[in-house]
Amino acid sequence: MKIHNFSAGPAILPASVLKEAGKAAVNYQGMGLSLMELSHRGPEFTAIIEEANTLMREIIGLPENYHVLWLTGGASTQFFMAPMNLLNEGETAQYVDTGVWASKAIKEAKAFGNVEVVASSKDQNYTFIPKDYKVSKNAKYLHITSNNTIYGTQLRKFPKSPAPLVCDMSSDFLSRPFNPEPFGLIYAGAQKNLGPAGTTVVIVREDMLGKVQRYMPAMLDYRTFIKENSLYNTPPVFPIYVSMLTLRWIKKSGGLKALQRKNKSKALLLYDEIDRNPLFRGTVVPEDRSYMNICFVMNDAYASLEKEFMQVCEANGLVGLKGHRSVGGFRASTYNALPQKSVQALVDVMRDFAQRKG
Amino acid sequence: MKIHNFSAGPAILPASVLKEAGKAAVNYQGMGLSLMELSHRGPEFTAIIEEANTLMREIIGLPENYHVLWLTGGASTQFFMAPMNLLNEGETAQYVDTGVWASKAIKEAKAFGNVEVVASSKDQNYTFIPKDYKVSKNAKYLHITSNNTIYGTQLRKFPKSPAPLVCDMSSDFLSRPFNPEPFGLIYAGAQKNLGPAGTTVVIVREDMLGKVQRYMPAMLDYRTFIKENSLYNTPPVFPIYVSMLTLRWIKKSGGLKALQRKNKSKALLLYDEIDRNPLFRGTVVPEDRSYMNICFVMNDAYASLEKEFMQVCEANGLVGLKGHRSVGGFRASTYNALPQKSVQALVDVMRDFAQRKG
Repeated sequence: MKIHNFSAGPAILPASVLKEAGKAAVNYQGMGLSLMELSHRGPEFTAIIEEANTLMREIIGLPENYHVLWLTGGASTQFFMAPMNLLNEGETAQYVDTGVWASKAIKEAKAFGNVEVVASSKDQNYTFIPKDYKVSKNAKYLHITSNNTIYGTQLRKFPKSPAPLVCDMSSDFLSRPFNPEPFGLIYAGAQKNLGPAGTTVVIVREDMLGKVQRYMPAMLDYRTFIKENSLYNTPPVFPIYVSMLTLRWIKKSGGLKALQRKNKSKALLLYDEIDRNPLFRGTVVPEDRSYMNICFVMNDAYASLEKEFMQVCEANGLVGLKGHRSVGGFRASTYNALPQKSVQALVDVMRDFAQRKG
Repeated sequence: MKIHNFSAGPAILPASVLKEAGKAAVNYQGMGLSLMELSHRGPEFTAIIEEANTLMREIIGLPENYHVLWLTGGASTQFFMAPMNLLNEGETAQYVDTGVWASKAIKEAKAFGNVEVVASSKDQNYTFIPKDYKVSKNAKYLHITSNNTIYGTQLRKFPKSPAPLVCDMSSDFLSRPFNPEPFGLIYAGAQKNLGPAGTTVVIVREDMLGKVQRYMPAMLDYRTFIKENSLYNTPPVFPIYVSMLTLRWIKKSGGLKALQRKNKSKALLLYDEIDRNPLFRGTVVPEDRSYMNICFVMNDAYASLEKEFMQVCEANGLVGLKGHRSVGGFRASTYNALPQKSVQALVDVMRDFAQRKG
């Protein structure tokens, strides 16, 4: 049976990438050695990380004054590393609270400077993206979360801000083109559109750094990674390699514009069915609906059918659809590597289920 | 041609482990999905990390009051994370300086409390392990490095200390049995005897924690990883899986006692040849010679043959033998997964080369 993987992350990766990763795990390029057995300072891995950097710059269209860094520790580490590197005591950073992850970022930042939460949708269980707020010119940066995996909300447009944007892009990174110029710092755990769990990409603009006075351990200072080309210590070789393969796949797939078209088409196919089908309803205000994580629940009259619907999905090879506990219901993650036919398979099951039960 | 991998790290892993990892990268247990595509909160990865923890406890013989944690960031992150978690301002930690990594640990610790370097072999280019020092009863801990990858030195016996030991075991972790009781904290990057680059094991004794007053970000507080069973955020799934497979292999290989015998036998085979062969000499005082990283150089009279010898090694499939730039010459890393026959192949090449050139 064909498996359709709607997992929120770690998530579906292109089949061609996985096939090549599987080969490299055993015998890298016919060397008789696994990629996992090779020195990170040897010519093989040097070529991999250089290609990853070049592809990343090309795919996004990064100006020269941005650095691409490969770290570990996920967005959870960036929640404190960003303010540690960017915000002096007494200075102010502004944050938009659009979910649990944003509020963790807010909590961690408070240890380093003044944190102003300019807007929050918490009292509506984060079912929308607040847009009506003002960013102070004196803010060191404005922190936003481009896509909220748990709630299925997404910033369709990035806010205009006099302060540089610092953005957690973990769950929609490389799913659509964007103009990098308003961004001072972007971070993303790999395990959605980029690669497997185990590496975190940071893109930082040169002028953001070198302005804080505090002591930083070498591994928490972005400048260490810039200076050593992400090789100050042993990096997560295999996760970076698989990410590089995915970047090759993104380029071959036509880049971010082509992926955006496909992602929008997949998302609209499913949202149309959610809106049409009497059994289901979306949980997010339409204008803020994510094209990556599509959250929906059973309408109240059919709530007792939730478990049965999930069983039908699993019986049809549709996996990873359970909603996050703070929203309930269902969540279909439709990342870059998920084919349109997987969404169609879900839509077909929803229609068939409604016909039998509605 | 059979490749003999003497790389210092990332390093050789058991062939059976790599074969299974390659399969899991494409299709995990016949699920039709890669392990890299599965949720870290699903039953598959939960079973993997639980088995890894159980095997680690069993293989080492860890008492119940020790926690096994899976982090990222390598020893370089532990250099500051250990004192951040264990040492209050005004308190003193003692350090033994046995190499570049130990001195980085010393540098990072100074940001958190008083650091006393009780002994150093720096002025002898770290060619021996200092043993003649006194540890104060008032020290919060004594930091040691069990094996120094760059210089090829190893603590044959751990120092007696009234303070708990904090130990960087990165390069000989799981290569020999040890009594965990004197240790308050052990850390090790996986990429030597345990697995691929991308995860770091921390073993911490319960009573070491909760005694510092400072604020710590969630991802830098060992208690976060204890509380959430290393799943506070998305862990490096694939590196942890490969480490679990290696732990299975260690158990199947007879555990740490059996590996210690094999490692000693491999090391003595090579050291005997180094001592016997007129072309070569070891760089470390005999009593502190590592059984993991065996450093040797050409005797002065034959120094001009260094490049040619390296070429002969490569022509015979012996790779990863270049010494670290701060020692020069050659370094043969003979980790758990390196078979005796690889060491024999190197010895044969050394003998043959000496017969032709000596």
